[in-house]
Amino acid sequence: MSDELALLDATDQAALVARGELQPAELVEAGIRRVEARNPELNALIHFSFERARDEAGSRSGPFRGVPFAMKDIGGPDAGQPNHCGMRALRDAGFRESEDGYLTRRFKNAGLEILGRTNTPELALLPTTECEAYGPTRSPWDPARSAGGSSGGAASAVAAGLVPAAHASDGGGSIRGPASMCGLVGLKPTRGRNSFGPSVGERWSGLSAEFVVTRTVRDSAALLDVTAGPEPGDPYHAPPAPDGGFAACLTRDPGRLRVGVLRGAARDIPVDPAVVAVVDATARALEARGHHVEESHPEPLGDPEHVGHYVNVVSTNVARALDAWGARIGRPLGPKDVEPLTGALAERGATVPAPELLATIEYVHRFGRRLAAWWQGGFDLLVCATQADPPPELGVLTSTPEEPLRAFIRSAPYGAFTLPFNLSGQPAISVPGEPAEGDRPIGVQLVALHGREDLLLQVAGQLEQDLPWRDRRPRLHA
Amino acid sequence: MSDELALLDATDQAALVARGELQPAELVEAGIRRVEARNPELNALIHFSFERARDEAGSRSGPFRGVPFAMKDIGGPDAGQPNHCGMRALRDAGFRESEDGYLTRRFKNAGLEILGRTNTPELALLPTTECEAYGPTRSPWDPARSAGGSSGGAASAVAAGLVPAAHASDGGGSIRGPASMCGLVGLKPTRGRNSFGPSVGERWSGLSAEFVVTRTVRDSAALLDVTAGPEPGDPYHAPPAPDGGFAACLTRDPGRLRVGVLRGAARDIPVDPAVVAVVDATARALEARGHHVEESHPEPLGDPEHVGHYVNVVSTNVARALDAWGARIGRPLGPKDVEPLTGALAERGATVPAPELLATIEYVHRFGRRLAAWWQGGFDLLVCATQADPPPELGVLTSTPEEPLRAFIRSAPYGAFTLPFNLSGQPAISVPGEPAEGDRPIGVQLVALHGREDLLLQVAGQLEQDLPWRDRRPRLHA
Repeated sequence: MSDELALLDATDQAALVARGELQPAELVEAGIRRVEARNPELNALIHFSFERARDEAGSRSGPFRGVPFAMKDIGGPDAGQPNHCGMRALRDAGFRESEDGYLTRRFKNAGLEILGRTNTPELALLPTTECEAYGPTRSPWDPARSAGGSSGGAASAVAAGLVPAAHASDGGGSIRGPASMCGLVGLKPTRGRNSFGPSVGERWSGLSAEFVVTRTVRDSAALLDVTAGPEPGDPYHAPPAPDGGFAACLTRDPGRLRVGVLRGAARDIPVDPAVVAVVDATARALEARGHHVEESHPEPLGDPEHVGHYVNVVSTNVARALDAWGARIGRPLGPKDVEPLTGALAERGATVPAPELLATIEYVHRFGRRLAAWWQGGFDLLVCATQADPPPELGVLTSTPEEPLRAFIRSAPYGAFTLPFNLSGQPAISVPGEPAEGDRPIGVQLVALHGREDLLLQVAGQLEQDLPWRDRRPRLHA
Repeated sequence: MSDELALLDATDQAALVARGELQPAELVEAGIRRVEARNPELNALIHFSFERARDEAGSRSGPFRGVPFAMKDIGGPDAGQPNHCGMRALRDAGFRESEDGYLTRRFKNAGLEILGRTNTPELALLPTTECEAYGPTRSPWDPARSAGGSSGGAASAVAAGLVPAAHASDGGGSIRGPASMCGLVGLKPTRGRNSFGPSVGERWSGLSAEFVVTRTVRDSAALLDVTAGPEPGDPYHAPPAPDGGFAACLTRDPGRLRVGVLRGAARDIPVDPAVVAVVDATARALEARGHHVEESHPEPLGDPEHVGHYVNVVSTNVARALDAWGARIGRPLGPKDVEPLTGALAERGATVPAPELLATIEYVHRFGRRLAAWWQGGFDLLVCATQADPPPELGVLTSTPEEPLRAFIRSAPYGAFTLPFNLSGQPAISVPGEPAEGDRPIGVQLVALHGREDLLLQVAGQLEQDLPWRDRRPRLHA
């Protein structure tokens, strides 16, 4: 039964419980067996809460009662569990959270059973998951390759069938990138859609969003119905969810949409021909569905100035994160406590004067408006690459003490198409593209205007029906 | 006719046009005559756009077609008009805006005719309007006293009947305070309710909100229906407006609400007995309406730490504003270009490292959640003072080169009750209280949870019916 369950998405697993064909405890036990069997090869989960999951299995009656789940080991605080953010210092301090985050609480109240926490690069800074603290996470498609980052542990676990869905977060592509590299559905929701509370108002000055990676579009839709909506005191909000919710949208036809396609590069990052082929195949599939498809994209994507402002936001927030974590574990964190990249970014961020960060945030908000103008000009959807290159081998996107920023600079092909929409706060989804490159899945990105996750999910659902990726399974699978 | 029109609110003036009893041009001409007659004593408007108003009168068919209006001379860019922010340097440079802000555009599209721009303290930093660039604005209730700030010009103009409503903005109390001092209705909407675009994403790191001051509750409600709702690319949003809009809410009874009253001080700012009397009278009026009223308030209001974080946000944004305005007029702005207070705050803000500002913003967002917890605990509404003291005389809230921060420090009684809700982003309204202190109106503040302007307007409407303030007129009136 364990092997069969590994093939079911969260919706189908929950249906077995709802129909009384399986007990929640059986779903949980099967999930634990899959993690025990496959995780040692993948290093996807790094903390485990099996006993709690066994004790609590089925105790909460939500739509996903008993379905195995995993939290990313950054953000998503889970009372009593670690939250090490890929940092040796937090690992060595044995840090554990004292309260649930609102999002964690919503996952729990939906009935999901958390089996553990998934690996992440230090402070979620890279599109690969190879932190010194917990070692590399491997792709189930090819263990020599990266599962992506920063939600690489989550993506590896879901692609391998250990859990049907897992918590993830995206401040520059960290949901969409790992989804692309692991053949998954990765939706970054609209800014403000899911709450960061109670301890955090917004992360990375509004650039980061939290949600999940899943294998099916309907799982992402149904989970968004669980997580969406403000908590009391949230500093900002997203536009309201559609009437009836996101899952219900999937039963409605989006009509004939005007779709702009960016086939290749928007700026000075060359795009691998295999990626272009995936974008082209997606465009053809959308045309075959009756959408109006033409080559067009928002021009500001080609303006390289936004990258420097992105680095300003990230580096200042890294410096702040080290201060905050130091305060939480009771000792200041210096360059020796972190990886070379983290130390270099923190050092840079600490020297930025506040008025310069405010100027950057002004730029970021203007950049969002400049992007939005393209959609206002009549387009419903942008289709472009999720990443410029197929998944890299492990060890490629790493730094050395001599070249601390090397990993960051080499990561450009993996963030160039995603980070603009962290700046704008728009929803964007990566879905598996076809043709895939052998054992290297390649995703394709759909982007909509703020609040239009419904449109992304509807069109992702069409592609899921029309392209054969739903039946592909990675080499390492539970 | 001019004198009679001065007594009508915007809704009634618009109705005259809608019924064909007056032409838009007649409304505009009467407004211009009132400004010409009374403004020299008040110094409420400092820039005039009479010819444009005459040329365009009635050319736009909105719900307020032909109704005279005024923009505050900070924010609210109006193409071709000045926007001097109370600064000598911008006045001397003859600065004019090149495009409308989204909010200005919405006012225009509603049919409002802008007669000019209203006075503000330099960079809107004080609860009184006495900038060196344009001189003091006087209260129509007592010309020796302040009309408040920073929307003091707006409040003076509306209280005197020059225009029935005027644009205003509130980063620490700058809508509510002048409304309190001038016997007006001043609603600060929920963060994100009205757009700052296209040039600005958010002002004062989310603390500031733009809207209007009015003489009647129904005008504030109907104008919120005009201004509310996001523009494309807005970085953040407010919760959605109620079905049918805000004006329609006034026709519905809010039911029996649970109201907490803060009679006196929340922290170390003593409250004038006349102000306490106003709060008590308001509490009695709400009880007489059938609401459940008890003494209670959010405890974090008493935590003085939030004031330092407020100053962090303001000072860093002042430093940024000088950089940005310098860039717009083509020369750097230094301490000699600004008033002593502005220079001191800018100097302070320039030295704050970005990670410290990020720590402040984290505090701000947590503070908002801590406040919200009181409402979540069962209260619908907080009633408290708008300001701790009645309106001061002109010349009291000023600085000197030797004591540049004096005005800011002396202003504490005028911001202590308002600025917490700039930090939280909650909607809050000041309505005229009874008994007033002779020629010194005293407002009372109602505060609701994010998105609940409907509740504030409904209860303000009840107070407007039950207390006699609607019939009081200031000494100087058109």
